[in-house]
Amino acid sequence: MIRTIYWEDGAVVLIDQKALPLVERTITCRRYEEVIEAINDLTIRGAPAIGVAAALGIALGAQGITATAQDDFAAAFHAICEGFARTRPTARNLFWAIEGMKQCFEEAREAPETIRKRLLDRAIRICEEDVAINRRLGLNGRSLIADGAAILTHCNAGALATAGYGTALGVIRAAWEEGKKIRVFVDETRPVLQGARLTAWELMKEGIPATLITDGMAGYLMKNGRIDLVIVGADRIATNGDTANKIGTYSLAVLARHHGIPFYIAAPVSTIDPGIQSGDDIPIEERNADEVITLGGVRIAPVGIAVYNPAFDVTPHDLISALITETGVLMPPYGQAIAALFRKR
Amino acid sequence: MIRTIYWEDGAVVLIDQKALPLVERTITCRRYEEVIEAINDLTIRGAPAIGVAAALGIALGAQGITATAQDDFAAAFHAICEGFARTRPTARNLFWAIEGMKQCFEEAREAPETIRKRLLDRAIRICEEDVAINRRLGLNGRSLIADGAAILTHCNAGALATAGYGTALGVIRAAWEEGKKIRVFVDETRPVLQGARLTAWELMKEGIPATLITDGMAGYLMKNGRIDLVIVGADRIATNGDTANKIGTYSLAVLARHHGIPFYIAAPVSTIDPGIQSGDDIPIEERNADEVITLGGVRIAPVGIAVYNPAFDVTPHDLISALITETGVLMPPYGQAIAALFRKR
Repeated sequence: MIRTIYWEDGAVVLIDQKALPLVERTITCRRYEEVIEAINDLTIRGAPAIGVAAALGIALGAQGITATAQDDFAAAFHAICEGFARTRPTARNLFWAIEGMKQCFEEAREAPETIRKRLLDRAIRICEEDVAINRRLGLNGRSLIADGAAILTHCNAGALATAGYGTALGVIRAAWEEGKKIRVFVDETRPVLQGARLTAWELMKEGIPATLITDGMAGYLMKNGRIDLVIVGADRIATNGDTANKIGTYSLAVLARHHGIPFYIAAPVSTIDPGIQSGDDIPIEERNADEVITLGGVRIAPVGIAVYNPAFDVTPHDLISALITETGVLMPPYGQAIAALFRKR
Repeated sequence: MIRTIYWEDGAVVLIDQKALPLVERTITCRRYEEVIEAINDLTIRGAPAIGVAAALGIALGAQGITATAQDDFAAAFHAICEGFARTRPTARNLFWAIEGMKQCFEEAREAPETIRKRLLDRAIRICEEDVAINRRLGLNGRSLIADGAAILTHCNAGALATAGYGTALGVIRAAWEEGKKIRVFVDETRPVLQGARLTAWELMKEGIPATLITDGMAGYLMKNGRIDLVIVGADRIATNGDTANKIGTYSLAVLARHHGIPFYIAAPVSTIDPGIQSGDDIPIEERNADEVITLGGVRIAPVGIAVYNPAFDVTPHDLISALITETGVLMPPYGQAIAALFRKR
């Protein structure tokens, strides 16, 4: 099993996703600033994984707070939380995890030693629960995948985007583990190539038949009847079902609709943002031009060319066939389904 | 002015498009086999440019035929033509140029010396006329571009895809030369990056404002109202208007339709194949997996991953707003417009 991130011997250990697929190695963060840097530079990425990294990173930071006065300790703790909140704006799970850690802190206003232990326990639980959530999500979604289906996925919503098992790839894994003969087409997902580097690697490790394509090929495959369904992850879901995910997702949703192909989102409930009513309000991160104009250190565009590099786009809810979560498969109208889900909690 | 390919001192000279945009250099082919190799390995690419390369390459080959008996000369000539016909299956202009050279050969059944001269004259005329055709095409199409328009293009249908000036970029150049303030969004066009490497380079040379994006971003830009029209070239057009062009074009056409944005094809009449009734009959070249799994010599996907790499797709005529040619702008129904055009010739 791929373990993307975990706590070990007083440190946060994570797979170096920048080095994959050519080199498989882990990085050990002994200071919380290293975890922040790992999120910023995409050593760890994927909304649920970013959430787990923030939780473990905040716990790591808390272990190092030397202040003993309650106010000083609280100030130091909140400064650490702030550091994580400034990393990446789109992933809801990041803020969900930070809120969870702050709540834990508020509940544990005791001796620093106790607070530190409680925060670490909570972070480790968030990490472990993430895998369990993905397994439930996979079981919920696998019935949407027919035996023999050809599936298109974009970016990486796999074990590497989570603490383990994956969301979109979790559903695919669950169908595969059930014995269904499936084939996955993997969008390479420029500019950062999470599909070519990470999803292709995960599927090969699992032995699930996978074929790599460039992002521009998806429409042609759909036109030729070679895709039965599309399934992707999510970075933030508004309460009306509008979903932010890796740039290129929206195009796939339009193409799927044009060809009458189901388009599924797979994400834990922690990706749904109760404070955001529609996709228009989801902040979209723009990243550095270097991601587009260089590749593996090789320059691929003329010096001085202007670049636009939004990391995510928003797919409107009416292009989404279902939202697969650990609590069940939500169907339209999503506004009602999501409201009911939050009422139950 | 960018001169992509020309005849000089008994040789075919062409810009090395594999080296662009980092290195600007020409390659001099003194043997026709070198021209064949340049077409195969994409040193020269773009349907009209491939046609010109075949014409000049066949003329170059003819200069080297030593046989004097008429039958032997003819056999050698046709073997050279066959060599060019086997390079790339999709570009109509390639076969159009070979047919033109064969016709010239049939008309010139005289002394080898005369045949050689006639073939060279014809090839040089095809090369020079290509630029003139593109200028007419540009003038015909420029009225479709409004002042202030934001234009999306894919791959390279510029000077580099032709003997000079370009088809889709020819229309853009003509609008720019008219003084229209325009902005071009350039799809990088994986796997071979003709957009990032060639179109970006051409537009920067011309001073036309250009912004590079990855292929997955086009839909998001359209959704946000940032694209006014799409214009691309063509590799082969069926008599019903169905158009083969660089992989990813079909997805753009579907996205443009979804957003109510005009989608134009710009191509010389030589790209229309009178022998092909619909896009289903256009042969689509599949290229080597290495184009997808490596980039600038850097491996970007796991060893052993399966790859699908079609170089072109077909856009059905009903997604095309107009076909811009040197004889005028063809409007739907294209079957009638194209039939009328061939009747006139």
